[in-house]
Amino acid sequence: MTGIAAIIGGGVIGGGWAARFALMGWQVRVFDPDPEAARKLDAVMANARAALPGLADAPMPPEGPVTLCPTIPETVAQADWIQESVPERLELKRKVYQAIQAACPEAAVIGSSTSGYKPSELQGCATRPGQIVVAHPFNPVYLLPLVELVTTAANPPARVDRAKAVLTQLGMVPLHLRREIDAHLADRFLEAVWREALWLVRDGIATTGEIDDAIRMGFGLRWAQMGLFETYRIAGGEAGMRHFIEQFGPCLSWPWTRLTDVPELTDDLVEQIASQSDAQSGAHSIRDLERIRDANLVGILRGLKARDWGAGAVLKAQDLRLGGLPEALDDLADLAAPVPTLDRAVPLDWTDYNGHMNEARYLEAFGAATDRLMAIVGCTPDYIARGGSYFTAETHIRHLGEALAGARIRVDTQVLSGAGKTLHLFHRMWQGDTLIATGEHMLVHVSLATRRASEPGPEVAGPLARLAAAQAALPVPEGAGRAVGPR
Amino acid sequence: MTGIAAIIGGGVIGGGWAARFALMGWQVRVFDPDPEAARKLDAVMANARAALPGLADAPMPPEGPVTLCPTIPETVAQADWIQESVPERLELKRKVYQAIQAACPEAAVIGSSTSGYKPSELQGCATRPGQIVVAHPFNPVYLLPLVELVTTAANPPARVDRAKAVLTQLGMVPLHLRREIDAHLADRFLEAVWREALWLVRDGIATTGEIDDAIRMGFGLRWAQMGLFETYRIAGGEAGMRHFIEQFGPCLSWPWTRLTDVPELTDDLVEQIASQSDAQSGAHSIRDLERIRDANLVGILRGLKARDWGAGAVLKAQDLRLGGLPEALDDLADLAAPVPTLDRAVPLDWTDYNGHMNEARYLEAFGAATDRLMAIVGCTPDYIARGGSYFTAETHIRHLGEALAGARIRVDTQVLSGAGKTLHLFHRMWQGDTLIATGEHMLVHVSLATRRASEPGPEVAGPLARLAAAQAALPVPEGAGRAVGPR
Repeated sequence: MTGIAAIIGGGVIGGGWAARFALMGWQVRVFDPDPEAARKLDAVMANARAALPGLADAPMPPEGPVTLCPTIPETVAQADWIQESVPERLELKRKVYQAIQAACPEAAVIGSSTSGYKPSELQGCATRPGQIVVAHPFNPVYLLPLVELVTTAANPPARVDRAKAVLTQLGMVPLHLRREIDAHLADRFLEAVWREALWLVRDGIATTGEIDDAIRMGFGLRWAQMGLFETYRIAGGEAGMRHFIEQFGPCLSWPWTRLTDVPELTDDLVEQIASQSDAQSGAHSIRDLERIRDANLVGILRGLKARDWGAGAVLKAQDLRLGGLPEALDDLADLAAPVPTLDRAVPLDWTDYNGHMNEARYLEAFGAATDRLMAIVGCTPDYIARGGSYFTAETHIRHLGEALAGARIRVDTQVLSGAGKTLHLFHRMWQGDTLIATGEHMLVHVSLATRRASEPGPEVAGPLARLAAAQAALPVPEGAGRAVGPR
Repeated sequence: MTGIAAIIGGGVIGGGWAARFALMGWQVRVFDPDPEAARKLDAVMANARAALPGLADAPMPPEGPVTLCPTIPETVAQADWIQESVPERLELKRKVYQAIQAACPEAAVIGSSTSGYKPSELQGCATRPGQIVVAHPFNPVYLLPLVELVTTAANPPARVDRAKAVLTQLGMVPLHLRREIDAHLADRFLEAVWREALWLVRDGIATTGEIDDAIRMGFGLRWAQMGLFETYRIAGGEAGMRHFIEQFGPCLSWPWTRLTDVPELTDDLVEQIASQSDAQSGAHSIRDLERIRDANLVGILRGLKARDWGAGAVLKAQDLRLGGLPEALDDLADLAAPVPTLDRAVPLDWTDYNGHMNEARYLEAFGAATDRLMAIVGCTPDYIARGGSYFTAETHIRHLGEALAGARIRVDTQVLSGAGKTLHLFHRMWQGDTLIATGEHMLVHVSLATRRASEPGPEVAGPLARLAAAQAALPVPEGAGRAVGPR
């Protein structure tokens, strides 16, 4: 499911939407009167290309084209999704909706990135109120999965379902609010913390850098994976959530925070915050900070993905939707050709400081290719759960080229032999038409109960024998059977 | 710098302190009248052993002994650090300090884990007020680096410096508050968010699970690495922090949040939260959730470590303090013996769902051993920055055994040859006295400018020739020169 996305407003948020749509295969049209719009959009696209595709462990769709359009009518004329990210002024937004609805298809969803306005306020003067929803994302839009979806009774249920389906296909988590409320959910928390932080800076209790450390060295690490309530459930210890509330509930009436009031944003306070922020982060440009942030987020997200948890579980589910590689022998067009076993972008967390893929990650890619080949011949997660699997006994890797972050790599796999307890594979890793590495692997079938060599079950031995027989006709690959050493 | 740590109160927080001290090599004595104390402590130690040592990419000190003591005087008699983590009641804490100070050395630091009390309140009735500081950690204490250090004018500067040094040696980040304030820093933010969350649940706007998703799918991922101000600095785009405040500052006076008041914790509200939490997280026991959380945190922390950022930079600095492996040829006791090049615990993020080390991580470990060997012969980060390095051309790995999360693995390295442009290494990986894998590697010296083979500079060629000559006397290792394939 892709289509045409119209992005109205191409700043940090609109540009992030454009990048996510394009990288998920949509055609993207952007309207932004800023003369710098093209340059700014290119910068976001470059960051997104390095970061997003590598989150998938599956082939991504081909990137869609991104076009700047001179007028709103041209931008939205054929759009399936229209995303408004113009400045937070209600009159301006309402004017933009008039222009959009005069030219867009009636079937399109119009999402607003507003962080403050309720959908009923946006729908107020619209030609077709039922078309407009709040779809509030978080920066960077191309990496963070959360999008707050806020609707009203004016939105037909089918339109809401369509909005959820599109956002899910984009790899996002649409959090559909039970009812509209000022500032939706997440920004209410952000505002609470922001107010308290302003007081602490103003009163000289802490600098901006100390406050950031108080967050990122402690509870920020907890919240990245479990949020507030699940964290407190654990803090209650074996007695759980009721115990936690009973133990800590009373503290809440203490006069801890200054949240009953808002500090005045005087010039002095703005200057104090800005200069502390310069001292804390000024060694990096904003562009540098964006790239640092993205690399950090990719590391965090892929760390969570390895555990199939939280935002990482979202990525796993997205891989299943992407599909794209053979899953069984019947999916192979030609049993006598090397089997496609990997097709992915090099993720940022596989690369070193200068962007080159680390040597161990070549083996990680070959390991994923081996897992795919195993599944194709019937050694699936179900089969493994029943107690049998293949373990790698021996590996030989040749590095013939280099891959950079974001590069698309493919692996195809030749079965050199597969009978009895052993499976002998030869992987070739390609970037475009260039062979950049080979991996030769001897695997042994084991019983997971005894962790000793054993014969595979017939549901594996049969398909493997068929594949091995068909591939026996292939020439022995250049480099197979070679040892490390001087020649 | 290690010593004797006395832990008063062995619950979730005290147990976490005990684990961090013990795993960093301290002798630990614990006082806790709970008859279940030993069992609870064992559970925390088991979680901590699986999670903490693997954060280091350097050899950890030998684990110190943890002993339960029957009385406070016996617990604190010889202690260098005393950590109080008893329930949050001021009279109780003051009574405990009386008992501690009647028996402990005057040189010891007494840290309190209190989240609510100011140090002046704790020092109030003490025999020696200057000994008592607030050292407020975050759960899990053995993984999260933040500790809020709060002192008063009663604390001599030398005592404060000693407290900072001990906490830093434990791998923590002591955030020394400029002055005492109710609830210190981080808990003021937590309380602000907790209050707002209670309102949202009470008013039926969102469930506990929806609130957790609003955090962990969005800003929680940002805060794990940059905190609040650095995130907003980026959100300001190229115009930076002043622009951000000018753009978003006015919103703060909007009546968004309900923070001016505290919802009453009625039985109904407690029940509502507890049952929503059961629906959200009840499929996992608290013990399961702890292990899931720890594995997630290890993934996040090591992801940040790979980027040398935030809490990950803290881990890097800790590795430097740990040291423990040779850094240059002069550090080697015997040039004619295999060189120790790796000594570490298997981190949780190197293992699969059943706790076994993934195949690619064997190559990651061998890669680290190769980097260490290169540095020892003079191919240091400085040398690499000047434009020369070794690239791996070919690798052969044999898997002979298995390693589990938390297992201590060592690698020693034999130089098979090292002359001209090539370097031929043979790594052996040991767990105890068991050989679990070997890695044979051919490396080529390259110019990083041309990325082509080149002769190493004399500062590398010289030491390498010395080491290679000395190691020529070693027998060729079993398994060297072997190809993958049937025998």
